[in-house]
Amino acid sequence: MIWDQSFIELAPLPRGFHLVTNEVLAQAPDPRNCEMGLLHLFIQHTSASLAINENADPDVRGDLERHFNFMVPELAPHYKHTTEGPEDMPAHIKNVLIGPSLTIPVANGHLALGTWQGIYLCEHRDHAGGRRIVATLQGRW
Amino acid sequence: MIWDQSFIELAPLPRGFHLVTNEVLAQAPDPRNCEMGLLHLFIQHTSASLAINENADPDVRGDLERHFNFMVPELAPHYKHTTEGPEDMPAHIKNVLIGPSLTIPVANGHLALGTWQGIYLCEHRDHAGGRRIVATLQGRW
Amino acid sequence: MIWDQSFIELAPLPRGFHLVTNEVLAQAPDPRNCEMGLLHLFIQHTSASLAINENADPDVRGDLERHFNFMVPELAPHYKHTTEGPEDMPAHIKNVLIGPSLTIPVANGHLALGTWQGIYLCEHRDHAGGRRIVATLQGRW
Repeated sequence: MIWDQSFIELAPLPRGFHLVTNEVLAQAPDPRNCEMGLLHLFIQHTSASLAINENADPDVRGDLERHFNFMVPELAPHYKHTTEGPEDMPAHIKNVLIGPSLTIPVANGHLALGTWQGIYLCEHRDHAGGRRIVATLQGRW
Repeated sequence: MIWDQSFIELAPLPRGFHLVTNEVLAQAPDPRNCEMGLLHLFIQHTSASLAINENADPDVRGDLERHFNFMVPELAPHYKHTTEGPEDMPAHIKNVLIGPSLTIPVANGHLALGTWQGIYLCEHRDHAGGRRIVATLQGRW
Repeated sequence: MIWDQSFIELAPLPRGFHLVTNEVLAQAPDPRNCEMGLLHLFIQHTSASLAINENADPDVRGDLERHFNFMVPELAPHYKHTTEGPEDMPAHIKNVLIGPSLTIPVANGHLALGTWQGIYLCEHRDHAGGRRIVATLQGRW
């Protein structure tokens, strides 16, 4: 059985949805020898999220950022958690909507992503530092 | 230890939320001999999602479709990714909101779903083809 | 290899977002002897959800409840599933948005949560009973 785990550090990114498949896989456990398994990714933050979506047209990422800002606006009158900046409470809500983790199947030594799927880091803060992801690979040889 | 994986093909479905528990389990690895484990389902597409919700009143599925169309409308003025049809960018947003995967516990040879829980295929496109799901079962005998 | 599973019963909670890290871990399989693994939590209900978010300021939980009520209002004219109470159909939609399960990495005998992360039970009904969560720990010694 395979169990392998790494702690990934992503450099600071501007607010928005970012395609980070290559950056993540460069630091994640190598699935090459895994015939069948799962790769789990978990971001240790409450104001940035992980998602999977289209890896081609960058306008998809821009539209996601614009639409999440529309659904979860800054300075809504019902927010009470306002002392950490106008985008902080929206960041927490976006994180609950999108989620902090992904589980991706591994088949024959590769992630079994669809042709158009890539891994997104969704940065909800205006001036965030780097982000930490725990990557756990399990499976069989 | 049990590791088993299958690639499920679901026939094309109209846009909307569909209860597909039986169709999925018919093609997923059989949990009958698994005393304790997890079944992971992963859809290899960015415009259809997997969810779990009520398996009884079909109005719940209709209301979900109507409400997601309300939260994520077509032709919003902030969309730039518009060349693949008016429902394509909303489909990507819905997929990020709902997610591409499920992990369901297995106990004593059965999925440990609650009484009212069923598996949904959420089809966000108007004229989609069939959808592919990677099903991975792991556990112990 | 470690496989361990428990069925957690949470006492009834009022509608809202609740920090339940301690209540959940008191009944979940003990990760102390797990060097590397994953803890999976699955709620067996369609009108309450599990999430991870900030474990400090309780206003974050209040704002989440208020904002989800704003995005998913009661008595929307497009709801047809209305016989189980005005908050029942919104509860199903919130459950699809937030999700029924969490997978949390385990490292060196501890959950690898970030400093500010805690486990939330999101109760979407006005007068719910207790909630049942299946907790599954897997990993290696």
